[in-house]
Amino acid sequence: MKQNIIVGQSGGPTAVINSSLCGVVAEGLKQKNIGHVYGMINGIEGFLQGHFMDMRPLLGSGELELIRTTPGSYLGSCRYKLPEDLAAPIYAELFRRFQQLDIGFFFYIGGNDSMDTVSKLSRYAAQHDNPICFIGVPKTIDNDLVLTDHTPGFGSAARYVASTVREIAIDAAVYDNKKSVTIVEIMGRHAGWLTAASMLARKFPEDNPRLIYLPEAAFDQEDFLSKVTNHLKDIPNLVVCISEGIQDKNGTFICEYTSKAGTDTFGHKMLTGSGKYLENIIRDKIGVKVRSVELNVCQRCSSAMLSATDLAEAFSSGAFAVQTALTGNTGKMITFCRSSDDPYLITFGTADVNQICNQEKKVPQEWLCAGGSNLTEDFITYARPLIQGNVSVPMEDGLPKFAYRS
Amino acid sequence: MKQNIIVGQSGGPTAVINSSLCGVVAEGLKQKNIGHVYGMINGIEGFLQGHFMDMRPLLGSGELELIRTTPGSYLGSCRYKLPEDLAAPIYAELFRRFQQLDIGFFFYIGGNDSMDTVSKLSRYAAQHDNPICFIGVPKTIDNDLVLTDHTPGFGSAARYVASTVREIAIDAAVYDNKKSVTIVEIMGRHAGWLTAASMLARKFPEDNPRLIYLPEAAFDQEDFLSKVTNHLKDIPNLVVCISEGIQDKNGTFICEYTSKAGTDTFGHKMLTGSGKYLENIIRDKIGVKVRSVELNVCQRCSSAMLSATDLAEAFSSGAFAVQTALTGNTGKMITFCRSSDDPYLITFGTADVNQICNQEKKVPQEWLCAGGSNLTEDFITYARPLIQGNVSVPMEDGLPKFAYRS
Repeated sequence: MKQNIIVGQSGGPTAVINSSLCGVVAEGLKQKNIGHVYGMINGIEGFLQGHFMDMRPLLGSGELELIRTTPGSYLGSCRYKLPEDLAAPIYAELFRRFQQLDIGFFFYIGGNDSMDTVSKLSRYAAQHDNPICFIGVPKTIDNDLVLTDHTPGFGSAARYVASTVREIAIDAAVYDNKKSVTIVEIMGRHAGWLTAASMLARKFPEDNPRLIYLPEAAFDQEDFLSKVTNHLKDIPNLVVCISEGIQDKNGTFICEYTSKAGTDTFGHKMLTGSGKYLENIIRDKIGVKVRSVELNVCQRCSSAMLSATDLAEAFSSGAFAVQTALTGNTGKMITFCRSSDDPYLITFGTADVNQICNQEKKVPQEWLCAGGSNLTEDFITYARPLIQGNVSVPMEDGLPKFAYRS
Repeated sequence: MKQNIIVGQSGGPTAVINSSLCGVVAEGLKQKNIGHVYGMINGIEGFLQGHFMDMRPLLGSGELELIRTTPGSYLGSCRYKLPEDLAAPIYAELFRRFQQLDIGFFFYIGGNDSMDTVSKLSRYAAQHDNPICFIGVPKTIDNDLVLTDHTPGFGSAARYVASTVREIAIDAAVYDNKKSVTIVEIMGRHAGWLTAASMLARKFPEDNPRLIYLPEAAFDQEDFLSKVTNHLKDIPNLVVCISEGIQDKNGTFICEYTSKAGTDTFGHKMLTGSGKYLENIIRDKIGVKVRSVELNVCQRCSSAMLSATDLAEAFSSGAFAVQTALTGNTGKMITFCRSSDDPYLITFGTADVNQICNQEKKVPQEWLCAGGSNLTEDFITYARPLIQGNVSVPMEDGLPKFAYRS
């Protein structure tokens, strides 16, 4: 008897999370033992309210191909934490719904929190001798999942960050007869992988961004101001990249210093980022022209800087998830194993999802240098292969054409 | 006897200001009556300090082709206002330097302020029977120059804004089971052309961005909150686009309300934009999830969303400037004259630079609708041709390859 697949997307979107979805759907529909592939609308949360769709009609219509290069989560997302107590009634309810749909295989595309969902569901299944296989497909621009070389979504976000910082540095340099500082704030609350990617923008070692600060190193404001002053002695236009999550040696986020300081019209704290805070400090203490740029959500939703490598790997990891589930694997996340940097060689594997969920992989301390204001070439060797290749996104009336769930 | 050309770039950079430069250089070096083409480093300000370069070596080396798709001002820029009094000694100094270099033709690529420079220099030349021809080549993402259909730089910036807003709307929609508001702040202090370009992001009339606010309409906070509340009744994730320069009926910039309110650690005013201000208001008054995104300098320096139409027109307007100068024209700016929207047909002309400098072209009032929160289809008809065509930017190690002045 044929069994069905259900797949969902969870957590923050990326530029290639839909490519992973397409990998699951295309591979699932290829398998002769699979009947339907269902998509959960808004992840586990929407599914609990009965929201799902049949994915097969997307295959013949060319829609699946369009979904592959569409950023964001085609199926919608959620941030929903299942209870720790596996005896909570919600589990029985979920499995009742799985049974109704003859689900044999469950795929969840997401980051740490989504792997927590896979962990809990697979443990519940094991406790109840339920044969459904639960597999996690990694996704996060933060690149902070353990036991995998990297995660889909990071390569495209890194390519966006590197090319955008290179462009911002050019923009900042047009008044090269006047000193200036440009601070670029990049996503990453606890892990600095994406901020580190700004290093790829350099064309030579002393090029901008001269200073790069990650949450992995304690941020010292006095040392920062002294470094900025020194660099301004030999280049007119300094570009500094910082993670949104930089923090001082006491673990206080730098952006928290702003919210302590400012209040708005309603007496509420003014919530601005670390970049804005450092902009104000530099204006006050050094007195040069200064600007801060927050790359914001564009980092995770830009289709213009899709990495062909990332897009293809996302698709393949989704397809591999189906293959490995059909061999009976459950409670696993798909992992990327690198055997060589140049030529870049990757194979897929699996790891116990319980060892991945709720963990964070940081940038190694030995890759940090210059008192935490720069990185070694190890990072370039690691990251360069992940940003390779252009993707030709379909265009319509001069703009990228995307797929939408109707 | 052969004469020489000098060309400079001035004011804020755009993605295609270097294409205009290449047009001037390539056309200049083609003319048998022209000896050298010199580039002013950092515009008129750098030139006064003796900074210029010979452009011919760039032609044979392939560098000029690379410059064409490089954002920013290859020659460097300046913001330098010549004195109103044409008897000021700086004019004699400038013309002495022109004479030293046998300059017959002067081209200045820039916006309103740069046209002021062209105006003053051509008037000084007329007063002194000096035969040098002074021609302005238009450039500005703001699209606010009068007497021309549009300006080079606007098309690429508009394409960046439209595609980015479309992507932000997708990103905002992933949690479509939770209400949210996303505010996108777009450049434009006095003219709303670029903010209006966000309208191109829509795939159907009721699509996001639902609300678009330009400086051309008085911004009413109560009306805004009421419109946001109403739209949230029929779509879960609302995207609002605003110009940085929106202002109330008294002419007070909305962003000024923030600086009145917040002070930082040093007791300085917290300078944040209109978007951040409205974000705080919505959080306070409506209480939904809200985020603001400032597109910032990426609007004018992104090479990923170069419009092929814009890039080609920028080059051609530079070349046309040389041709028209060689026929003896002076004190003119190159203008774009549209004879048809579909098919899109443009010819070049010239207009008296004195009627252009220090003027601002606004979005026509009759194109505004819905109480200043939306635009009519006239804008789409106008803007759509300007964002057409992909440009293949040279790549190197996975990132755009740009030209740099060594």
